[in-house]
Amino acid sequence: MSKVKVISWGLGAMGSGMAKMLLEKKDVEIVAAVDMAPFKIGRDLGEVLDIGKKLNVNVSDDFSKIKHIEADVVILAIDSFVKNVFPCIKQIVESKKNCITIAEEMAYPYEEHKELAEEMDRLAKENGVTILGTGVNPGFVLDTMIITLSAACRKVHSISASRVNDLSPFGLTVMKTQGVGTTLQEFEEGIKNGSIVGHIGFKQSIPMIAKALGLEIDEIVETREPIISNTYRETHCIKVEPGMVAGCCHVAYGKKNGKTVITLEHPQQINPQSEGVDTGDYIHIKGDADLDLCIKPETPGGIGTMAMAVNTIPLVISSKPGLKTMIDLPLPHAIENSFVEQIKYYRGE
Amino acid sequence: MSKVKVISWGLGAMGSGMAKMLLEKKDVEIVAAVDMAPFKIGRDLGEVLDIGKKLNVNVSDDFSKIKHIEADVVILAIDSFVKNVFPCIKQIVESKKNCITIAEEMAYPYEEHKELAEEMDRLAKENGVTILGTGVNPGFVLDTMIITLSAACRKVHSISASRVNDLSPFGLTVMKTQGVGTTLQEFEEGIKNGSIVGHIGFKQSIPMIAKALGLEIDEIVETREPIISNTYRETHCIKVEPGMVAGCCHVAYGKKNGKTVITLEHPQQINPQSEGVDTGDYIHIKGDADLDLCIKPETPGGIGTMAMAVNTIPLVISSKPGLKTMIDLPLPHAIENSFVEQIKYYRGE
Repeated sequence: MSKVKVISWGLGAMGSGMAKMLLEKKDVEIVAAVDMAPFKIGRDLGEVLDIGKKLNVNVSDDFSKIKHIEADVVILAIDSFVKNVFPCIKQIVESKKNCITIAEEMAYPYEEHKELAEEMDRLAKENGVTILGTGVNPGFVLDTMIITLSAACRKVHSISASRVNDLSPFGLTVMKTQGVGTTLQEFEEGIKNGSIVGHIGFKQSIPMIAKALGLEIDEIVETREPIISNTYRETHCIKVEPGMVAGCCHVAYGKKNGKTVITLEHPQQINPQSEGVDTGDYIHIKGDADLDLCIKPETPGGIGTMAMAVNTIPLVISSKPGLKTMIDLPLPHAIENSFVEQIKYYRGE
Repeated sequence: MSKVKVISWGLGAMGSGMAKMLLEKKDVEIVAAVDMAPFKIGRDLGEVLDIGKKLNVNVSDDFSKIKHIEADVVILAIDSFVKNVFPCIKQIVESKKNCITIAEEMAYPYEEHKELAEEMDRLAKENGVTILGTGVNPGFVLDTMIITLSAACRKVHSISASRVNDLSPFGLTVMKTQGVGTTLQEFEEGIKNGSIVGHIGFKQSIPMIAKALGLEIDEIVETREPIISNTYRETHCIKVEPGMVAGCCHVAYGKKNGKTVITLEHPQQINPQSEGVDTGDYIHIKGDADLDLCIKPETPGGIGTMAMAVNTIPLVISSKPGLKTMIDLPLPHAIENSFVEQIKYYRGE
């Protein structure tokens, strides 16, 4: 192996960002790219990424057309949900390629999509490749970091953690799914009809933490409450008057016999600073001893997601085959040297 | 495997603490114990641990006398240095047992003790077992946590981290090795004659971080400066007048071509709060993006070390053979369920 060969499937904000990140890494090359957007299909990837040079890789509209191209791993960034990415993952795996996806539900699909997860695990093993779902959250802040921090505890009684972020940089799609700019009544309707969804990841992070630590959980309860603004808040795409909704406070409780063991909070809103709320990632482990961790300001969402997917490439390529989660792989980390050297290290070569 | 069988070698403060922790875990049993202290030899381990019951395990003075006893792992807690634990590790490994040690230099012995490290790796592979050095620091705060945090970075330019702790609970031995209670002149003499040592672990943590992230380091420079007290400080065993030394500020710089890439600080003193210094673990990664993490108050040293060693047992038992470091194993974490279940999970059973 002289270079790690990657296929970029999905060239939206995250997919493009990961492709650009890959281009700056040592001993990595993008050998093919797939995207469905009409204005990207057939164009050179370098043009699509707007990096001022050609890469001699034409963006294809269909993975099946380029699946014969030899590649070590496919980075899949097209959707959040297991059901929607499953057919793509099946194709990737059956073409004997490893797969890393940032689909949130893939971070730990064993709870909500047990059968599909087992099917993916079987397919991966059959084809001798590895599948991983990762990202900043799920994948890092509210699971990997909590799990790793717990290593210094003799005993863990309960866990609570919160990721407080600022939605201001995002566009209208995100504002809609978080209910930003709605009235209280609109927010409540949005929750009922499913257009306001909050965070996707709690039903992955909670079971992942529970599995790693061996904590028993028999129920996950979620609440989504409007964050009513007391101040005027404004971003490049939306205005929120006092009394209107600035975001969604989504909380999930992992319980055993009615008792809460794991609490994960993710209040997402625009301009939290306007009411003195600091962004940050906060973890509290009640145990022996108690541990309090904070990352302040919060781990950036976009960069964090791109980094997690790209930085886990050597771990995935050198892993035993199967559907893996962040629990199964060695410590994730940034990579400043050759990806090929990294893989050799993990393979013990 | 119905229970994980452990041998406790070394029953000092850490060794005893780990033995007690093991007794509270599910599906673990201590099958033998070794210690050289005359008042412990031949006595029942339960008595030595002062837990109010017998364990039907007599403390032996010599591992070779009990090495025939079947065990999955030996926890070795007798010394800080590779040269001193190497003969013990050789015996453990040759009796086909895995080994976890809290000897600080074993956290990453490949830099300072390359030949012995390679010999241990060879011996472990030959005997089909795994060796790991771990603890709170090195092993967790200033390496594992830094490495894991970096996963959310696209690029890492430099790293600086600091562990600010309070030595007050410790006894006179620790006070001496950190120069607490000395005059400035005595401190300087202690540094020269090697009686004041500061922290043991920087020459492990820096190469471990560099190896994981692929950062190039060609030199590690260390400084040990006295922390001169401006206040009167007192603990159960020592008094420090203003103008005297309250501890040792030990800093290590990992450099490449004279430029500092990794800075690790560990100021150790009694009663830092008396001058408004908060204890805590602080990590700053300068990269894309910058990340700032803190654990406040600091991860407790004693409990953290015990927890790291005990919590990595399933990871070590289910690892591929060889001398491993925290880089090589899956995410460490607390364990609330059966150790046997944990091992089955990692083995994919």
